[in-house]
Amino acid sequence: MIINPENIPSRTTSNYPDEFKPLVSGRVKQALGNAAKLTNFGVNLVTLAPESCSALRHWHTLQDEFIYVIEGEITLISNEGEQILKRGMMAGFPAGEENGHHLVNKSDAMVVYLEIGDRTLGDRVTYPDDDIIAESTPDGWSFTRKDGSLYD
Amino acid sequence: MIINPENIPSRTTSNYPDEFKPLVSGRVKQALGNAAKLTNFGVNLVTLAPESCSALRHWHTLQDEFIYVIEGEITLISNEGEQILKRGMMAGFPAGEENGHHLVNKSDAMVVYLEIGDRTLGDRVTYPDDDIIAESTPDGWSFTRKDGSLYD
Repeated sequence: MIINPENIPSRTTSNYPDEFKPLVSGRVKQALGNAAKLTNFGVNLVTLAPESCSALRHWHTLQDEFIYVIEGEITLISNEGEQILKRGMMAGFPAGEENGHHLVNKSDAMVVYLEIGDRTLGDRVTYPDDDIIAESTPDGWSFTRKDGSLYD
Repeated sequence: MIINPENIPSRTTSNYPDEFKPLVSGRVKQALGNAAKLTNFGVNLVTLAPESCSALRHWHTLQDEFIYVIEGEITLISNEGEQILKRGMMAGFPAGEENGHHLVNKSDAMVVYLEIGDRTLGDRVTYPDDDIIAESTPDGWSFTRKDGSLYD
């Protein structure tokens, strides 16, 4: 089925604990893959306002990720430092590679990209810069501090 | 890691039985996901010359598919008939939906798109218009006629 993003709801919410939400407050996601009834992987159309991040810097134990830049210029931050991704450029982040990464819009224009990630069960997310861990559960992501304590 | 398509090998080969190869002879694929060491899903950059098809019309029992048109205008043929997909448009094909689909370049210009598909084991592909069945095996796709007989 054809997916027209104009007909797909946008969300600006984040399931991060409150202290991390401001980092992604300029992020708008549209779940295109869900709209097409895909279940094995997600495809999101993401719009990032200037200064907003895609996510906290992180890596997944079991899930692969891929991104394709549709509009604008975004900064990829990973163990390799900062790299600019322009329109038409792509990046992949294989499961289990201990290379925390995220995208930051350091430009003064909106950035639009596609993000694709599979839904392999039992995934765990490591955040090298922040006191948070995520684990996938049947009910969604569960976040704790690195000492196992819960966020309020 | 950043993926630059200029550095990714192109293939024009098809693993279809010989009688079906001409339909996809104008198809060039670059395995971007593999280049990024992804294993849970594939991401291919595909260029289709005029008159070429993406594949025989087909549907998967277990694997999801998604496409995003980067350049040009392509005709999606499915149970809904013919629909035109222009630059920036997308379509998804959920596993198990018995809706044979393929893309045909009926324009006079090259078309470029991304195709994404997961690699769920045990998948089976049905081709409503052609005497062929595909099953995934540990060694790749196995093709037979619908009566089970092998192609030479």
